[in-house]
Amino acid sequence: MPAQTSPAHAAAVRRAVRDGRHDAHTSGLAPGHVQGNLVILPRELAGDFLLFCQRNPKPCPVLAVGDAGDPRLPTLGADLDVRTDVPRYRVWRHGELVEEPTDIRALWRDDLVSFVLGCSFSFEEALLAAGLGVRHIEMQRNVPMYRTNMATVPSGPFRGPMVVSMRPYTAADAIRAVQVTARFPAVHGAPVHLGDPAQIGIADLSRPDYGDAVELHAGEMPVFWACGVTPQAAIEQARPALCITHAPGAMLVTDLLNPQLAAF
Amino acid sequence: MPAQTSPAHAAAVRRAVRDGRHDAHTSGLAPGHVQGNLVILPRELAGDFLLFCQRNPKPCPVLAVGDAGDPRLPTLGADLDVRTDVPRYRVWRHGELVEEPTDIRALWRDDLVSFVLGCSFSFEEALLAAGLGVRHIEMQRNVPMYRTNMATVPSGPFRGPMVVSMRPYTAADAIRAVQVTARFPAVHGAPVHLGDPAQIGIADLSRPDYGDAVELHAGEMPVFWACGVTPQAAIEQARPALCITHAPGAMLVTDLLNPQLAAF
Repeated sequence: MPAQTSPAHAAAVRRAVRDGRHDAHTSGLAPGHVQGNLVILPRELAGDFLLFCQRNPKPCPVLAVGDAGDPRLPTLGADLDVRTDVPRYRVWRHGELVEEPTDIRALWRDDLVSFVLGCSFSFEEALLAAGLGVRHIEMQRNVPMYRTNMATVPSGPFRGPMVVSMRPYTAADAIRAVQVTARFPAVHGAPVHLGDPAQIGIADLSRPDYGDAVELHAGEMPVFWACGVTPQAAIEQARPALCITHAPGAMLVTDLLNPQLAAF
Repeated sequence: MPAQTSPAHAAAVRRAVRDGRHDAHTSGLAPGHVQGNLVILPRELAGDFLLFCQRNPKPCPVLAVGDAGDPRLPTLGADLDVRTDVPRYRVWRHGELVEEPTDIRALWRDDLVSFVLGCSFSFEEALLAAGLGVRHIEMQRNVPMYRTNMATVPSGPFRGPMVVSMRPYTAADAIRAVQVTARFPAVHGAPVHLGDPAQIGIADLSRPDYGDAVELHAGEMPVFWACGVTPQAAIEQARPALCITHAPGAMLVTDLLNPQLAAF
């Protein structure tokens, strides 16, 4: 695939995924394009989940919602099909992970509703473009994520703690990082906390609940953003009869460009 | 004076000052209007001082510069006269404060250049409007200000440390405060530091170099903004033969509305 930034390139990634030529993570693919978290739920839970997202917009920024039974999301890509265009899925039944297929056409039903939520890849691109390093990328690790003592606002069966991702910065860079990421409310927006981790219930930064720990250098403080693992944790809590998500890091590549999400 | 927010009201404040009916601080007058720091220097230093402001825009945001010998600043008010419209002036000779008159017509010269710099009153109004308390206002004190170990970029004889003002916030409110004040680069903009005061050379928050100390509540961090005392300190360092400024808190009230300064 050519190293160009264009909708055609995003569509080319989706075609490669659809044709079985790519089944791994999507980090670094179609640079400049928005990648999204996928959540598919039965219609009977879709209203509660949409309201959960509305009530918790920082961890659950909704980019698109499909019609029940319709696997297309034309606002994210004319050809996009949520049944085939994610490299690897996770299928959950009653809160248990049961399989990780590369295609869910056989599981599709007339009552399934697709949600695509913004992902931190977009704001990390903005941080890098602003000259702000991203430690876990420098260390070639997954971002460290932590369960906090900040509760989400429940909706129906969806509830649980806010999960946050962490990136270390000096104070001056943390201030810049607030300004850079505040422009992107559709992909988690400004941080939710910075400084003392204990204030949000994190006992030990070196032991993240998800992902990998990263180093803090002298003079740096941890900066915490709301994380897309929050809705996943809420769904685990809700234990729906069926839920299908993307596998971690294997995101839905869309035609949207990251700068299109800038609120100002 | 009526409690309305309009250019007429700002002009009414200036008229009261000009006519000798008001010679004290201007805090709370003409709400909604930009108030400015005034610096008047001989033309031979004006170029260096303008360059000092250009090189240090966070502490020295320039709102207007007059022509040499011209006491008017029509972009800030059609009737504005810098010789009469500030409630109380300070006259400095060779770096020493020599008098505090309420009118400088007798001192005016053909070679004097007026600078008006943005002031934190504007961003404090934005913080309050955003529901963020401002501790020194709550405590009815002057804002605490500190000399830091951050050097300004010199220009000619103007040099010295950056002076910062401090307002305490919880982490979540500090993040909001960055977003709110970043919109106003013309009045100091986003903070320059938050968290550990020692990192910027402040040994003891309870002993500010200017203004009054304020309380930090449990769970709060100090948030530091570049301060308009920075150019005053640089001028003291430069020891010009003549310099005229406003007296602390007795600002120049302009027709500009604070929201007009929002960069986005």
